Amino acid sequence: MALIDINCDMGEGFGVYSLGDDAEMLKIVTSANIACGFHAGDPLVMHRTLKEAKANGVGAGAHPGFLDLWGFGRRPIQGERPADIEKIVLYQVGALMALATDAGHTISHVKTHGALGNMAAEDRNLAEAVARAIRTLDKNLIFVVMPGQETERAGEKFGLPLVREIYADRAYADNGNLVSRRLEGAVINDVEVAAERVIRMIENREITCLSGKRLPTRIDSVCVHGDTPGAAAMARRLRARLTSAGIQLAPMADVIGV
Amino acid sequence: MALIDINCDMGEGFGVYSLGDDAEMLKIVTSANIACGFHAGDPLVMHRTLKEAKANGVGAGAHPGFLDLWGFGRRPIQGERPADIEKIVLYQVGALMALATDAGHTISHVKTHGALGNMAAEDRNLAEAVARAIRTLDKNLIFVVMPGQETERAGEKFGLPLVREIYADRAYADNGNLVSRRLEGAVINDVEVAAERVIRMIENREITCLSGKRLPTRIDSVCVHGDTPGAAAMARRLRARLTSAGIQLAPMADVIGV
Amino acid sequence: MALIDINCDMGEGFGVYSLGDDAEMLKIVTSANIACGFHAGDPLVMHRTLKEAKANGVGAGAHPGFLDLWGFGRRPIQGERPADIEKIVLYQVGALMALATDAGHTISHVKTHGALGNMAAEDRNLAEAVARAIRTLDKNLIFVVMPGQETERAGEKFGLPLVREIYADRAYADNGNLVSRRLEGAVINDVEVAAERVIRMIENREITCLSGKRLPTRIDSVCVHGDTPGAAAMARRLRARLTSAGIQLAPMADVIGV
Amino acid sequence: MALIDINCDMGEGFGVYSLGDDAEMLKIVTSANIACGFHAGDPLVMHRTLKEAKANGVGAGAHPGFLDLWGFGRRPIQGERPADIEKIVLYQVGALMALATDAGHTISHVKTHGALGNMAAEDRNLAEAVARAIRTLDKNLIFVVMPGQETERAGEKFGLPLVREIYADRAYADNGNLVSRRLEGAVINDVEVAAERVIRMIENREITCLSGKRLPTRIDSVCVHGDTPGAAAMARRLRARLTSAGIQLAPMADVIGV
Repeated sequence: MALIDINCDMGEGFGVYSLGDDAEMLKIVTSANIACGFHAGDPLVMHRTLKEAKANGVGAGAHPGFLDLWGFGRRPIQGERPADIEKIVLYQVGALMALATDAGHTISHVKTHGALGNMAAEDRNLAEAVARAIRTLDKNLIFVVMPGQETERAGEKFGLPLVREIYADRAYADNGNLVSRRLEGAVINDVEVAAERVIRMIENREITCLSGKRLPTRIDSVCVHGDTPGAAAMARRLRARLTSAGIQLAPMADVIGV
Repeated sequence: MALIDINCDMGEGFGVYSLGDDAEMLKIVTSANIACGFHAGDPLVMHRTLKEAKANGVGAGAHPGFLDLWGFGRRPIQGERPADIEKIVLYQVGALMALATDAGHTISHVKTHGALGNMAAEDRNLAEAVARAIRTLDKNLIFVVMPGQETERAGEKFGLPLVREIYADRAYADNGNLVSRRLEGAVINDVEVAAERVIRMIENREITCLSGKRLPTRIDSVCVHGDTPGAAAMARRLRARLTSAGIQLAPMADVIGV
Repeated sequence: MALIDINCDMGEGFGVYSLGDDAEMLKIVTSANIACGFHAGDPLVMHRTLKEAKANGVGAGAHPGFLDLWGFGRRPIQGERPADIEKIVLYQVGALMALATDAGHTISHVKTHGALGNMAAEDRNLAEAVARAIRTLDKNLIFVVMPGQETERAGEKFGLPLVREIYADRAYADNGNLVSRRLEGAVINDVEVAAERVIRMIENREITCLSGKRLPTRIDSVCVHGDTPGAAAMARRLRARLTSAGIQLAPMADVIGV
Repeated sequence: MALIDINCDMGEGFGVYSLGDDAEMLKIVTSANIACGFHAGDPLVMHRTLKEAKANGVGAGAHPGFLDLWGFGRRPIQGERPADIEKIVLYQVGALMALATDAGHTISHVKTHGALGNMAAEDRNLAEAVARAIRTLDKNLIFVVMPGQETERAGEKFGLPLVREIYADRAYADNGNLVSRRLEGAVINDVEVAAERVIRMIENREITCLSGKRLPTRIDSVCVHGDTPGAAAMARRLRARLTSAGIQLAPMADVIGV
């Protein structure tokens, strides 16, 4: 029987601002990717999210991004040297780890956010910079990667425990990357369609591309979103469908056994 | 023979901006208080300062402040709850610790910056929030305090190793606090006068107030400034005067033997 | 028959973040105080809010605050010189004016936000700095003030058109200032109680303090909040009560006839 | 006899940070491009720079950039819609105009900074967004453009007064764009070589490319830098060479007669 994690970005508030319904999502997912103050999040939000994740038995990970609060880390920022990205990741993950010590939780994984994640998936030097930062902090820290992308290769090269994730509601191009949101068919809005596709990919151990092409891969986690209207309902339904299909859910550290 | 540390704020640049002559100051002082990205500093500056401190045999500490780059952390910001200050300190020190892991240096101490430091010196709840954050991260981490102030009491209460510092160029009020910069006589600009006063305070183990009042205290470190014109020359002269007076210099961890 | 304005803070989003239900509030109030990018707001939010205010026949004003996005401009920041506050106000109002030119709306008024507003109400130098900034930009620009406070006196001294506002849901101290939110009775949560009080104050041309004391004053506008749950419903009910009481509503420029 | 402007970026400090020697550069150049708080600058720096420009008879212009203090506006940020860039420019120029009202100076021109400038030179939609923002504010405001680039075409399309500038120390590619700093020969470090090239380009009314290719163009202004060591000395020498060659210097508004 398959053992799978469901991960979601959380702790994306800042000061008076909040984003998404973390309280609701924490009842549904098994791992939380917590923003670290650069594209979203602040020390108070981070601490609160860690405590609530712990209380809900949800694994906690760092979700570092570009220093770009206004753009929410979604804007590709060119001109960063990989060696600098490495420090940016170290800073953010270290800050979250310190807060985790106080909140009584453990940081199990690192997943890059938004544009930093997209760019690292395609740029070997960037991917290795992230992997190097993770290994420097703790060689047992999980690196969440997209199967077939540079991040997966970098994680393997640096000997990090890897969690290979698929996106529940996003279509895949033939190279295993996400289809750009600007293109038709990029986002799957029908939760039943999304659920069937996810279950099939997990059972067949392969990514199904928009073209029909199949990319064999190990799958450890399914990424869901929590910041759109109806997100929690959609995630809850997906979870129900997964468990109905006999798929067992657990935090990603348990899925890969680290 | 007295063993004394000289500490200085460093790593206060941000992006293209730099402040002070860190390269020069690192040849003079024995401990560096490194800004952590809230009132100054960024991951690249922090990393570089850690590497250079290590290369110069200078001890490295965290220098957390208010999230106030524009005001350089010098503006008193009211309305922060002590529990929130605790998280702000955890975040900043944790970020620096992560970078230190990569830079091959160790964080030996924490000293609060600017308005946060001034407010903590006088506010028990704030002082204890800082001490609590330090103890959570590492109970062997040194808390740099002003003798006779709330920070000293908080550090003692939480059982932290303490370094009691005096300011080389600042006059003291009768309560052991610094005389406000706005008042006459608050800043000692003559380095020879400053040096004589520092040597006398170290030898007599007491703070000499502007009024002539003497406050007995252990003294472990002398704080110098690096961000004003002529700062490096003044610090170099002070160092020469201290060693001439038979005072030995060492990073603060060696001074108090932790 | 009394002619009264209802004003509300708006445009308080930033990047992906939003705050309050501006679309709903714009159907209820007659003047919008638009955040200018320092404590909230950004060029896109500001422009959108200006266009929507115009489309709804709602007057638009600038709502400058401290440069403190994290604290939403609510934290008292000490150590600012009045001459500097003047420039901060000029910058923010000027930025909004430029966007208004493009959005096809006019800036009718300036109202200081949060801690800046509270501090200016009590500090003559600060209040005059704000008034001076407004007069420099346009001597016909309305200054929204609290009756009996330093802002009112500064506005009179500089010959600005004034709008004297009362708060619908906040209790008054005997000096005409708001009772601190931390004290009991500071906030009036029952909309019917609030509405009756507001109508009575408008009809009697006086502020009724918590103690029962009455402070005679001209009243031009009622301030309502839009950023709490149920805020829109409360504002809608207040508006209905005012019109039932025969009070006519209009943007503040029409109320004072500038 | 040729009448030419020398322009330089100024007011690039932020809070305690400063950059470049504005006091010195203001004695050399005839126009100042003032940072507006997004990539550098703050209300106080902006105001001070305006006053000093006025006192030195130096023309003042707005120098809007990306909201990217950490990257000093030099990092290309993708994903901004032209309509959004338009608002970003409006905001920044409007803020400077308001401060100019108080400082007693006039804003004569707009020149985009760093990555925003580079991107607008090559992207028609971006260039037109900037031109549209300028025209909205004041159709007599000068748009500083690179000859032959999209910014020049956009300025012409929107009927703005144009100042065509050349860079004193940068080599040109055959399309009239600057050669990337990463390529050899991109920067001309020898001031005599730079001065001769500038004089020749002004006299011949053409841009001389690195390849030897010549691009005929009107030239109204020469851009010099003020933020590198030795910048002021280099600019002073360039100015002396220009005047020796019989070229007269004046603020750009006088050069093009608006």
